[in-house]
Amino acid sequence: MNRALSPADIALCAQAACLLEVAAVKPGNVSRYHDFDDTRFEDFLLSAVAVGAALGAAGAAGVGETILLAVQDTRRLVDVNTNLGIVLLLAPLARAAAMEGGPLRRRVSRVLATLTIADARDAYAAIRLARAGGLGKVEAQDVREEPTVTLREAMALAADRDTIAREYVTDYDVTFGLAVPALRQARGRGLGWPAAALESYLRVLAEVVDTFVARKRGGNAARAVSERAREVLAAGEPGTPERGRAVAAFDSELRAHGNRLNPGTTADLVAAALFVALCEER
Amino acid sequence: MNRALSPADIALCAQAACLLEVAAVKPGNVSRYHDFDDTRFEDFLLSAVAVGAALGAAGAAGVGETILLAVQDTRRLVDVNTNLGIVLLLAPLARAAAMEGGPLRRRVSRVLATLTIADARDAYAAIRLARAGGLGKVEAQDVREEPTVTLREAMALAADRDTIAREYVTDYDVTFGLAVPALRQARGRGLGWPAAALESYLRVLAEVVDTFVARKRGGNAARAVSERAREVLAAGEPGTPERGRAVAAFDSELRAHGNRLNPGTTADLVAAALFVALCEER
Repeated sequence: MNRALSPADIALCAQAACLLEVAAVKPGNVSRYHDFDDTRFEDFLLSAVAVGAALGAAGAAGVGETILLAVQDTRRLVDVNTNLGIVLLLAPLARAAAMEGGPLRRRVSRVLATLTIADARDAYAAIRLARAGGLGKVEAQDVREEPTVTLREAMALAADRDTIAREYVTDYDVTFGLAVPALRQARGRGLGWPAAALESYLRVLAEVVDTFVARKRGGNAARAVSERAREVLAAGEPGTPERGRAVAAFDSELRAHGNRLNPGTTADLVAAALFVALCEER
Repeated sequence: MNRALSPADIALCAQAACLLEVAAVKPGNVSRYHDFDDTRFEDFLLSAVAVGAALGAAGAAGVGETILLAVQDTRRLVDVNTNLGIVLLLAPLARAAAMEGGPLRRRVSRVLATLTIADARDAYAAIRLARAGGLGKVEAQDVREEPTVTLREAMALAADRDTIAREYVTDYDVTFGLAVPALRQARGRGLGWPAAALESYLRVLAEVVDTFVARKRGGNAARAVSERAREVLAAGEPGTPERGRAVAAFDSELRAHGNRLNPGTTADLVAAALFVALCEER
């Protein structure tokens, strides 16, 4: 996909990516078969449609503006935080999808390289509005204060504790290097979107510690979750009974902790990968 | 809701209505918990986002054009018929939502009164594209041929065998007279969207024979389904264990026939009611 997509196509890909991600059965997270007590499946459905307008217009707005508008539009429909991580990941990707010139990842690099302090200001406002606990505090920049650095510099300060922030610094290394290839490979083997999204989720989780789990429950817990993801992948090929049982067991273990052990960052990365893959099919 | 909505708001309400309808647990139909063999839940998710552009633009296009564009956009993402009935119902409603002047139903009446032969031509093309079995043949007008009557006149010819067609003739009598009030009443009692959609579904099914079931399995089968819906409503208030058991039993009975006893027209009417209710909340 080397050509610019229209705002309508970008909106559609963003909405479809959010829907396919949340519908997919991802151990420990909300899916078509599982709600959390405080966040229900339908909250995610409404959030998915809510972000279409802002992300569709990303080519004509700053990344920070896009993030803030998407979170504001979500908040008009849903009163819990459902999609801050997804919006932070999709905003630069959506802006890149609206640009001409070269492979999508190269365009994303250009978007990230030109982020401003104004982008940081709007993104901080969005984070405050979404009332997200974990993302709020970074070493030297607190989202309650006015930023003095660009959005990329602010993300760099949080990069060691948040994979989403790290994506801003590495030009989306996990998304393009791991999540998208896993998704493409699964699609290439004939899996439908939900099953392919699960493959991508397990592969990312196996290789990259989920920073949402790490922030909430500590690094050891997060590493143990990744170890279990590796065991699930080793249990059998997708579609086999062995794999199915391993996925179900993993899901039960994570859910036994209430919603405390939900690899939410990994789910966000899968949404970003779905967006990239859907854009490439347009 | 007496003011015109923006294209973006209309698109959002249409997409959200389709998503909430398909996610809701509706005995006999696809829901978040049930697929059909040939039509999966994710097909409906993608279809829901696909119709946003066409329905959002309904204020600036003919009803037939809107129907055809929505079906074309759906077909780009999904290769089975998921939403022809919904699109036929939503197109006049979306056009009315974009107009100024009076309650929504009065505006719908104006839209329906001004339908043309060109609207019929585009709608027939959409029906052919969606490859829908049941809707195809009416007494004097066949969708394989070029229409010689307006879309409303064509719908009048099918009104006795299709509730969707009848809505075009009665200014949406079932939607505004039954489905929307049931939805509003349920919401007023504090039910979430999925539970409220189920109430609306059961109330419509109890009072109006599902013409999709009737076309596929005959009038007696369809009347028996409505009788069962009345029994489910009588079994207990929403949220009680008695009601829950009755809904589950009804669902099992309908599914025991494969997907042959799915009240698809009733589900479409609920989507229309959700659209009206969501528009009124904007």
